Amino acid sequence: MAETSHENNGVGYVGIGAMGKGIAANLLAYTQQEGRPFFVSNRTKDKASFLVDKGATLVNSPSDLPAKCSVVMSCLANDAAVQEVFGEYLQGKPSRGSLYIDCSTIYPTTAEELTEKGQLAEVHFIHCPVFGGPGAAADKKLLVVSAGDAESRAQAKPYLEAIGKGVLDVGDQARSSGALKLIGNFFVSSMIELIAEGTALADRNNIPQSAVLEVLNLLYPSPIVERNFDRITTDAFECTADRPGTPVINGIKDVSHIVRLGQNSGVPLATAETMLRHLQGLKEEGKEGLDWSAVALGVRKQTK
Amino acid sequence: MAETSHENNGVGYVGIGAMGKGIAANLLAYTQQEGRPFFVSNRTKDKASFLVDKGATLVNSPSDLPAKCSVVMSCLANDAAVQEVFGEYLQGKPSRGSLYIDCSTIYPTTAEELTEKGQLAEVHFIHCPVFGGPGAAADKKLLVVSAGDAESRAQAKPYLEAIGKGVLDVGDQARSSGALKLIGNFFVSSMIELIAEGTALADRNNIPQSAVLEVLNLLYPSPIVERNFDRITTDAFECTADRPGTPVINGIKDVSHIVRLGQNSGVPLATAETMLRHLQGLKEEGKEGLDWSAVALGVRKQTK
Repeated sequence: MAETSHENNGVGYVGIGAMGKGIAANLLAYTQQEGRPFFVSNRTKDKASFLVDKGATLVNSPSDLPAKCSVVMSCLANDAAVQEVFGEYLQGKPSRGSLYIDCSTIYPTTAEELTEKGQLAEVHFIHCPVFGGPGAAADKKLLVVSAGDAESRAQAKPYLEAIGKGVLDVGDQARSSGALKLIGNFFVSSMIELIAEGTALADRNNIPQSAVLEVLNLLYPSPIVERNFDRITTDAFECTADRPGTPVINGIKDVSHIVRLGQNSGVPLATAETMLRHLQGLKEEGKEGLDWSAVALGVRKQTK
Repeated sequence: MAETSHENNGVGYVGIGAMGKGIAANLLAYTQQEGRPFFVSNRTKDKASFLVDKGATLVNSPSDLPAKCSVVMSCLANDAAVQEVFGEYLQGKPSRGSLYIDCSTIYPTTAEELTEKGQLAEVHFIHCPVFGGPGAAADKKLLVVSAGDAESRAQAKPYLEAIGKGVLDVGDQARSSGALKLIGNFFVSSMIELIAEGTALADRNNIPQSAVLEVLNLLYPSPIVERNFDRITTDAFECTADRPGTPVINGIKDVSHIVRLGQNSGVPLATAETMLRHLQGLKEEGKEGLDWSAVALGVRKQTK
C-alpha cells in the first residue's frame, strides 16, 4: 500500500445512473476548479462518454481508481452493487487514508460493514445518501446526509458540498445516515401509497379528482405530492428520460429496507408493508420498470 | 307550516365548539352587514355569551329557530348530535324552502338521510363540511365543501362564503361533500400516524429528531406536518385554549368513519386501521381528551 502522493490526487466516480449523471457532473466541475484529474468507471461505458467529453478519463474497473485517486465517490442501485464495487476498489490497493464516499440508498448495517472493511484496509468508507431526485442531482440541490467518524466526515465535506445544497450531519454512528435516509423514504413511499388509496376512494365515491388535488394542495403543498398525484390520476407510470421516476425494482429495494428497519426497530409500519405487497405484485406482472406510483394499480385491483 | 316572510328572515346558528366559535362569529358579522337578526342555540349557554355581547339573541333550543330564521347553520361533534339538532329544528316547523346548512364531519350516508328527511318537510338540508382548524375558522380561512341539489347549493353559497376563503363544489350527490371531507381527514390522520412511526424509528436508531424535521420540511413543508411533529417530539398532547387540537374522542369518530368508508368502497386502508387501534387504546386508558397526535404513545408502547 503506497502513501498518498500527488500521483494519486485524482477524484474518481462510479455509477452513472439517473442520479449518478448529475452527481458525477458536479463532482467533475469541482475537481476541475481544484485542478485535479477526474476518473470515471461505469459498467456501461457509453453512459460515461458525456463526462469524457468534459475532460474525465474513463477507466476499466473500480480497481483501477486507487492508483489515480485519493477520493472515490459512488451512487449505485443496491447493497450488492455497493459491496461489489467497494470490493473491487479495495483490490486496487488504495493508499492509507484514502476516502470512499457512497451515496446509494443501502441498509444501515451494510454501511457499517463496509466502514469496518475499510478500516481493515486503512481506508475511510463513509455512507452519505442523498435526498432529491435526478433533477436535484443535476442542479446541485441534493440534501446530503453524513454520518460516521469525525475524521471521515471532515474529509468528505468538500465533496459533499460539491454535489448538494447542504449537508445534514447525524453523528458518529456509520449506520445513522442510512437509517435517516430510510426514514425519509418511508415518508415518501407511504405518501404515495396514501395518495393511491385516497384517489381510489374518490373514484369509488364519484368525487372529481380535481377536488382531491385541491384538498391535497391545501394540506401538503409539495412537489412530491403533486407529481405522484399527477402520475396516479393520469396513469402516467412509465419512467422516461424526461420523467425518470423510481422504478418498481428500486422501490422494492427501498421499501424492503424500510420494512426491515421497522422490524429490527420494533416499529410496525402497516403502510410500508401494504406498499411492498403492491410493488411485489407489479414485479410478478413484469411491471418492474414502471414508476413506483404504479402501486395505484394494485390498490385499484383490490377494489374491483 | 308558514311561508317564508320577513318575520323569519333571521339567521340561526347551533354549536359553539372550537370550530363553531369562529364560524358563528363570521356568520354573525355577515348577517349584521345584511341587516338581519342573528340567533344562537347552544347546550352550554355560557359559551354563546360572546355572541350575545356582539348582538346575537340566545334561544333555548334549535326548535325555537324556525320561527325566527330562514337559514340555520350548525357545526357539531358527531352524527348523533347533527341528527338530534336537525330533528329539534324540524319540530320548530320551518317555513317551506328554509335552508339548513351543516358543517360537521359526519358520515356521507348520514348527510343523505338528513337531506331526504329535509325534503319530506320541504326544507333544504345541505352538508358542507370544512377544512381548516379553529384558527382558520376564526380567520375566515376555511375551505368549505358543498354538495347536493343545485338549488340548495346556490341558496347556501353566500353563507358559505361568509365563513370561509373558498367553496369547493363536488356535485349534486348529497353524500359527496362528506366523502371528500373523510378523504381529506384520511390524509391528515394517516400523516400523523406516519410521523408517529417515523419519529419512533428515529428514536430507536439514535437519530436526532431535528434531522427528521429537516427531512420532513424538505419533503412536506406544511403546517400540519410541523404542528404534529412538534406535538409528538415534545409530548405536548394536551388540548388547551391556545392549542385546541383534535381530541382523541373526535379522532375516533373521524377515523372510524374513514375506515368504514374504505370498507364500503372496497379500499383497505392499513394506516387508518392502525391509527384507529391506537386511538381506541388511548380511550381505554382514559386519555380521550388528548390531541389525536397522542397515537405516538401507542406507537412507542408497541416498540417497548
